[in-house]
Parts: sequence; C-alpha cells; structure tokens
Amino acid sequence: MTATALYASRMWPPVRRGAGEATDSTLDLLYRLGLVARTGATGVHTLLPLGLRVHERMSAIARSAFEERGALTFAAPTLQSRALWEKTGRWQAYQAEGALLTVRSSSGEEMCLAPTSEEIAAATVGEHLRSFRDLPVRLFLSTSKFRDELSPRGGLMRGREFTMADAYTFDASTHGMRESVAFLNDACTAALTGMGLSGVFQARADGGAISAGPSTEHLVLSDAGQSTIVACDHCGNRGDGAVTPALPPPPPDAPVVNVIAFILTHPDGDIQPAAVAIRSDLKVSTRKVAAATGALRVALIEPQDLPGILGKEAGTLTPWDVAGSPDTLLLFDSSVAELDEFAISDGGDGLRSGLSWEGDRRLPALKVSGRGRDLAEAVDGSRCTRCPGTHRQVRAVEVAHVFELGTQYSQPMKLAFTDTAGRDAVPWMACSGIGITRCMQTAADLHRDHHGLRWKPGTGPADVHVTVLRADQAQMRERTDRLVQDLTARGLSLLVDDRPLAAGEKLRYARLLGLPHAAVLSPDRPDDEIEVINRWTGRTTITQTSHIPRMAAPG
Amino acid sequence: MTATALYASRMWPPVRRGAGEATDSTLDLLYRLGLVARTGATGVHTLLPLGLRVHERMSAIARSAFEERGALTFAAPTLQSRALWEKTGRWQAYQAEGALLTVRSSSGEEMCLAPTSEEIAAATVGEHLRSFRDLPVRLFLSTSKFRDELSPRGGLMRGREFTMADAYTFDASTHGMRESVAFLNDACTAALTGMGLSGVFQARADGGAISAGPSTEHLVLSDAGQSTIVACDHCGNRGDGAVTPALPPPPPDAPVVNVIAFILTHPDGDIQPAAVAIRSDLKVSTRKVAAATGALRVALIEPQDLPGILGKEAGTLTPWDVAGSPDTLLLFDSSVAELDEFAISDGGDGLRSGLSWEGDRRLPALKVSGRGRDLAEAVDGSRCTRCPGTHRQVRAVEVAHVFELGTQYSQPMKLAFTDTAGRDAVPWMACSGIGITRCMQTAADLHRDHHGLRWKPGTGPADVHVTVLRADQAQMRERTDRLVQDLTARGLSLLVDDRPLAAGEKLRYARLLGLPHAAVLSPDRPDDEIEVINRWTGRTTITQTSHIPRMAAPG
Ligand SMILES: [Zn+2]
Ligand SMILES: [Zn+2]
Repeated sequence: MTATALYASRMWPPVRRGAGEATDSTLDLLYRLGLVARTGATGVHTLLPLGLRVHERMSAIARSAFEERGALTFAAPTLQSRALWEKTGRWQAYQAEGALLTVRSSSGEEMCLAPTSEEIAAATVGEHLRSFRDLPVRLFLSTSKFRDELSPRGGLMRGREFTMADAYTFDASTHGMRESVAFLNDACTAALTGMGLSGVFQARADGGAISAGPSTEHLVLSDAGQSTIVACDHCGNRGDGAVTPALPPPPPDAPVVNVIAFILTHPDGDIQPAAVAIRSDLKVSTRKVAAATGALRVALIEPQDLPGILGKEAGTLTPWDVAGSPDTLLLFDSSVAELDEFAISDGGDGLRSGLSWEGDRRLPALKVSGRGRDLAEAVDGSRCTRCPGTHRQVRAVEVAHVFELGTQYSQPMKLAFTDTAGRDAVPWMACSGIGITRCMQTAADLHRDHHGLRWKPGTGPADVHVTVLRADQAQMRERTDRLVQDLTARGLSLLVDDRPLAAGEKLRYARLLGLPHAAVLSPDRPDDEIEVINRWTGRTTITQTSHIPRMAAPG
Repeated sequence: MTATALYASRMWPPVRRGAGEATDSTLDLLYRLGLVARTGATGVHTLLPLGLRVHERMSAIARSAFEERGALTFAAPTLQSRALWEKTGRWQAYQAEGALLTVRSSSGEEMCLAPTSEEIAAATVGEHLRSFRDLPVRLFLSTSKFRDELSPRGGLMRGREFTMADAYTFDASTHGMRESVAFLNDACTAALTGMGLSGVFQARADGGAISAGPSTEHLVLSDAGQSTIVACDHCGNRGDGAVTPALPPPPPDAPVVNVIAFILTHPDGDIQPAAVAIRSDLKVSTRKVAAATGALRVALIEPQDLPGILGKEAGTLTPWDVAGSPDTLLLFDSSVAELDEFAISDGGDGLRSGLSWEGDRRLPALKVSGRGRDLAEAVDGSRCTRCPGTHRQVRAVEVAHVFELGTQYSQPMKLAFTDTAGRDAVPWMACSGIGITRCMQTAADLHRDHHGLRWKPGTGPADVHVTVLRADQAQMRERTDRLVQDLTARGLSLLVDDRPLAAGEKLRYARLLGLPHAAVLSPDRPDDEIEVINRWTGRTTITQTSHIPRMAAPG
C-alpha cells in the first residue's frame, strides 16, 4: 500500500458523531466504524475503505513472510473445473460434506468455487515438472476462498467467502517434505507475528477434509474461537483432543463400558470391522484408532447397519460378542483397561454390573490390564502424558494450519519427476493456510480495550490518526497540509480528522478506531510542535514532525 | 509491489532453454514464457508469478489514477444475493441473456457471481446516505468478475473470470452526475495511459446490459479486438455504429425497402408498435429508434408474433399496411427518404419495383422526402455528419467503458437523500469499468515486435532484466548480489537471469520477455561498469549502477 492520506470529512461511510461505543462488541465496532459491512448474502461481507486497508496489509505481511523465505506468489482462479477436482476424489468428498459451492455454465460445464487450492497448485506444478533438479517448488497465493457453511457466524470468523493465504510445497522425498513443513510453520509464525497476533501457539490437529496425515494448527486462545483444544494445566502441552496423547480422567463412581463398532479401511484396500471398548463418559477418537491400527480410514458403523455386520443391535455389543467373531479386531481403550469394577450391556436393554476383568472367569482371554491403548479423545480432566498435569478444555481461534500431504494429491493427479537414479517418482506435498479475514477480526478482538479498537503498528487502517483541532481555521488547514505532505513523503499512511467538531469528540473517535498513534495538531502549540499519543501506552509526547516515523515504525 | 528480485534459476514454471519463439503469437508468448496458464475450465486462467506481477501493477496503476482524483477504494465480494439483484430486475435480465453464473447454498440461498457491481455499490452507499452534504460519493474497486460467456476466447481477452477495475459515483443532481462522468473518463484515461496503452480513443457506445443511457467506450485499434466501430476517414470521428450519427452509404443499383416492426416501451409504461422503413442493405439501430421516439426500450417483434400484432406475415409489411393501423408509429430512415426509385414487398413472396415516393399517387400522406431520420446502424461506407468523409469499419479492443446511469439503479433500490430544500431526492449514478486482464494482453499485443514482448516502464513483470554472464563464477555471483542489493534498495524490481547458459541464449530470453531495460553483468567489464540495453530503442549504454534507476523510471 502506498503512503496516502484519507480524510474523515470525505470518508465513506461518513464518520458520524457518536458512531460506535467503547462498550460495543468487537464485531459491532468493525461494523459501526465502517470497516466492513454485511451484504444481504449470509456469511458474505464487503470490505469498506478502512477495512480493506487492514485486509491488504495483513495479506501483504503474509506474502512477504513467504516470499522472503523463497516462495513464489501466483494467483489461482475462483472457478475450478469439476474434472480437476474429480481426479483427487474431492468433488464428491466436499459435496458429501455439503461444503462445495458449484456452478454450471449455460454450455453445461460444471465448476466449483475454490475452497482450497491443492488441485490447482498440483496441476500448475505438474504441467512443468521434469526432474529432481526442478524441486523443491514452493508456491504462495492469497485469494478468496468459498465454503458452503450451513451456519456462517461470528462476522468474519467463519464466512461463505473469505480470504485465505495458502502455500503449497513439492519435494523429491519425505525428508524434503519435512523441511518444507518446517518452512511452512516458520513462515506462518512470521506472518502471524507480523500481523500483531501475540500468543500464537501450535497444536497437533486433525487434517479434516485436507489431509489424512499429521497436521499442525496455529491457534490463539480466545473465547470467540470455534476450536476446542485441551491444554495441560502444568506443562502447557496443547492440542486437538482427537490427536493429543492422554491418560483417561479418573473414573466415575459406577463406570459403564461401551463397545463401539467401526469399519477400518486398510492401505491395501481391505476392509475390516473393529470394536473399541471404552468408558461411556469418553468418546472414541477415529484418528487415534487409525494411528493404532494403521488404517487409512476409520468410519463408525451406523446403528441400522450393525445387525448385518456384527449380528447385534446398537448399544448391546459386548467384548464376548466380538471375541466370537474372529475377523473383528477388538481394542480396549486405556480407560477400560484400568477399571476394577464396571457395568456392561446385558445384551438387551439392561446392564450387568459388578464385573471385573480379573474376577469374571469367563473372560480370561479378554484380560486387558496393562494392554489398554490411548483411543479416546482427550477432554477436560484427561491427564497429561508428559507430566503429572491435567488437561483443561479451552476455546481457541485457528488462524493457520499446516498439513503434511505426502502423495495424497500428487499420486492421483499423476505428478511425476525423474529422480537422481533416473527413475520416475512422485513428488511429496505439504501445504498451509492462513485465514486472513479471520485474522483481521481476531487481531481486533485480541487487542481491543475498554476505549475501543487498538491496532499493532503496521496492521491498522493507517499508521497515524491526525487529529486537527480548529480545522475550520485557514492557518490550521495549512499546517495540516504541510504535515500530510511531510509524513506521507516519509512513508506513513494517515487518517486525517478534519471535521469541524470539538476536540473531545475527535479524540474519542481516535481512541475508538485505535490507530497505534494519534498526532494532535493544535492552534495552542507552536508550528514545530506536535502532540503524539500512543494508543498502547496512553502516553503523550510533545515532539517534532521528523520524529514521528521512528515512533510509528512497526516492531 | 515491493522492490524485489526474482531469479530465473528458481522461477516456476522453470525458464527452459528455447521456451518461446519470437514468431509466436502474443498469447502463445504469454503461455510459453510462463505469465499465465490455462486451467481446464474454459475461459479461466491462472496468473503465474511473472503474469501476476503485470496484473498487480496494472491494477495498482488504475487504483492510483482513481484515488489521486479523490475516489475511495473498497472491495465488494464475489457472492451476491439474488434478492439484491432482483431489486433492479437484473437477476432476470442477465439470466435471460444466459450471462449470469449462479450458485445455491445447501440451505437454499441463491446467489450470483458478480458480473459488475452497480447493485452492491448502490447498497453500500444507500445504507449510509442521508443528506446532500454526503454527496458526491466516488468509490473504486478492482476485483474478479464473472460472466457466463458461451464461447470464451482470445485467452485473456474475453474470459468467464476476469479482473475489472470499476468505479461508481453518486451525485445530488444531473449536473453533478455529468461532472462525475468527466471524472470517470479522466481517471480511465490516466489509468490506461499509465498502463502504457497508447492510441486510446473514446467513442459513443451502446450501454448494453449496464445502462439505458449514453455511454463512452475507451478503445484501442487492434485486429485482435472484438468490437467493430466506424471511423470517419477524414475527420477521425469514431464510434459504435449503433449510436454514431451518419448519412446512409450511396444506394445500390436496385434498392429495396424493408419495413421492420418493433414494440416501444414508453417511460410511462405504455407500449406501442412501431415500423421502420429502411433500405434492405442497412440495419435498424434500436438505440437510434429509442433516441428518436423517447422510448425506454425498443424490442424487435419476433416473426411468429407479427401476424397477431400487425396482421401481416414477416417480410411482407409495407408502409401502406402501417398507415392503416393508426396506433402504429411509422418511421422512415434517411436511407429510404432520399430514394428516387425502389422496390418493396408486394404483400406476398414477391417485390413491386419501380416505385417512387413522388410518383406513386397512392402515397401522398407518406411522402417522406426531407423527413427521413437517422435510424440505421452506421457501417462501412456510411457518410460522416461532421465532414464530407466516409465511415470505415475498424476492429478495436474495448479497454474501458463509462456509463451515465441516472437513477436507473438508485430509484428501484430506494436510495434517497434530503436535498438543499429539505425534500427527499434520488441520487444520480454513473460508473466505469476497466478490463485489467484484457489490458494485460492488449498492452502485450500492442507493443510486441519481431523479437518478442516489450513492456512499457512500470508495467512489466519487473523493471530490469539482469543478465549475468558466467554466472557460475564466484566473483560474478558476488557482483550480482551487490547489484541486486543496490537496485532493489533504490526501488527497482528485478528479474535476475543467473542460469549457467551461454550469453546468446540469455540475451534472446531477455529480448523475448521484453522488460524495458536489460542490465548485462559481464566479467569482461570493470566492476563499476554495466551495460544497459533499452528494449524499445535497442540502444546499449555503458553506465554505472547508480544511473540505472533514472534510466528505468516510467514516463
Ligand atoms: Zn503436562
Ligand atoms: Zn468526418
């Protein structure tokens, strides 16, 4: 963004007296101060002039972080052909989730509105890839993405249309991919730090619709967040409950054991039923079952399908039943293995209580003490595996996500290169995504105080809020013009409040909008003196124009 | 764009030896040199790193042209609600044209992919408009637009997804709107000039789906263009044939008069049939009929509807028939009024010839000499109304378009403000659009020569092409690093060809890609000497690094 001055007297929407209150929610402030606007389409926003500048700065910060580390920036289109997305099976997968927005041209061509860019990035690289000498390739882009959210909510936090800054890497080996994953995590960290997001931490995560492999979320603790994670109250180890190693929480007074049935799909395509015995107050993590069994996919058997597969009604399955079905894998969660006494289904509507693995003679083959595995989702009260601490559930905002993709996309898309030995090989991919639109609102929410918004240097709608007192006086207009010329020439962007209003109202607006510095031009001060108020410290300094750029510099 | 260096050795797609030939078409050069890529979706392109930079520069040039003249930049989303587009009737109108790409969310919400932004700009302004003091408002945006082109073609010239830099103005009066139209034309001219498009001219045009009012096209003559315009071979007056005033071309040897029937819709909602007598070698311009009759809309009566409306089969209509139908307006094009002798339908499949307006006693009421009006589309051979010259048809590229919108959008969208007399009033709108993606290819095509592409300073993928000879020598790598540091610090963006290839191949690549200046670093020259080749003049200058920024400055 070039260094320019915007004037409050000519802003759109107009800066009205009293618009916005310090007690407004962050989202209401973004609306009432004219940064963003609703559009009538659910989960879709317009970026107004002040908000667009925040968005552009955050997008540019992300781009610089990736380019400085060697990535090349390109731009993939919104419209992407169905044929491209069918190569990886994701047309159907996203459709099944109901997350894909699709269009059909009048000539009958089907396209989707890009929710992410794995396919087009792989196609862009695949078309020109020949030899290991062409690798690694690291591409960055920051474009609009689309997701058919059933209930878009939280303003910019989860929309149908949003900006994602994503990056895709292609390597000649697993080792190369791991280096690229480190590059992606490093660049995401630099980008988020540059955006002024403090307290970002990384956590193991579930790859979801993007990746079957390991992934890392970058999160910020926030009650406005839509991610629930577990955090150890002692060592601080944090992560998605579905993948974070944990010991079970202490058992309830009268523990009940449930047996939950799944279908595993193994890498060779074989499918196999599996049953997991778990305490009824806990939930099986399919990601942990996959990790424990080596299965590619783990899918719950629906109640109506259970009788056909295991011969039992839902809720009546016991380890005895499974033990009699030799093809079915029987697994015990550690929450069950350590129980002294428990109840379990009596095969009908009731429970048999008072059982123990040791005491019940009919279960010697099923004795599980010491053999339980960590198959449950970590929850509030789970115990840390790294220290004697206890997990607490906290809410967080996912601001970035880094995925190991392996050959999950490059293989079905038939990407190939000639390796050092002259053989055909498939490149290893990884990717990352930073939610630019979400970061805008998260930064605003994280930093606001009881006076209003507060932007870190380099991230707000402008660098300096110039408040001109007695803006109706010709002499003050001249001083304003000189200051604007001087500061923009020194690379600062300005918001000049030249409205004919009282000082109090104008200073209130400056605090509410929260640019990192306000410069107050007053007729009561000599020409070469200017009052600079730091929005973060609240401190006022009397200084000269030439000192302002150093004061307003980011970092 | 910040001043950065890209390296040919690390570019994606890789810069391969011999990629691209000076004899390639411009579009093939854009593909083969890795500026843009096809995507598998018809009419949809990916911007590769080198092409993205051209695109970003042209978009930034347009934005500066509008912001320097006082416009504020915002960003409207791609997804726009059906309800918004129904307010102006354009959901149906675009659908009827088959030009709208639409999506439906899983919750049943219908949206379109924005083809233009009149509705969302008006909604953005309408929500906050109160008083005449809030006007004028001038908003600019540069975003992706979408159009369901039946046959996208010409690469970036006409795509399904493209970038349009549009602007919307809102004024308190017709007079204000005219000033805003002048502002839009001025800003478009500055933007196009800044993009290096020489020879841009303005022409009266047909507002099409955007506007029923007058509009001005900004065009560049080019055989690659998809607009046909007429240009006077003497005074140079140019315009769309549908709206350019003209005298008919000389009549053929045995002229035939056709009578074509239309339905007029008047501003009060009344509809009326109208018949236009015109020479059979010419075509009625509905825009000229609308201007002559004051009708809001002029629609051809389809052959199957003609008997029901005027009691005649298509092709058999004569002035006699129309004269007997008092509700039907009868109009004579000037091509017909000046005829001495002509043929006309005999009411069946044949013609009656040898007729004249003077000679045929049964037509006194229809005598039209001196009463013909200019209702025909101007064509090759039409005569200029400003001078004795003759019109020639030429092909041109429409690079920008400025529209007077009046209250066509603000009225149905219920925009209102309190005027100086305290009454409710409706704002007057105007708008403009610059086809950024199209301008990229047009500039490339306009300026290329028999050595390859050629970019005007400030518009190409980078400012200076640094060709390093003997790039394998450590000493040359050091010199390269020093030069890169020096020139990027001085604000220049660079493409550094550090590939280990012969000088000839590397200089060929520099000419083919066509950055305005190439700097050749050679081991045969002293450290402080550098050879700079101007791609436009072909001239080589031996100079010092510190002189390069002045040589490479735009303008
Ligand atoms: Zn711990
Ligand atoms: Zn003329």
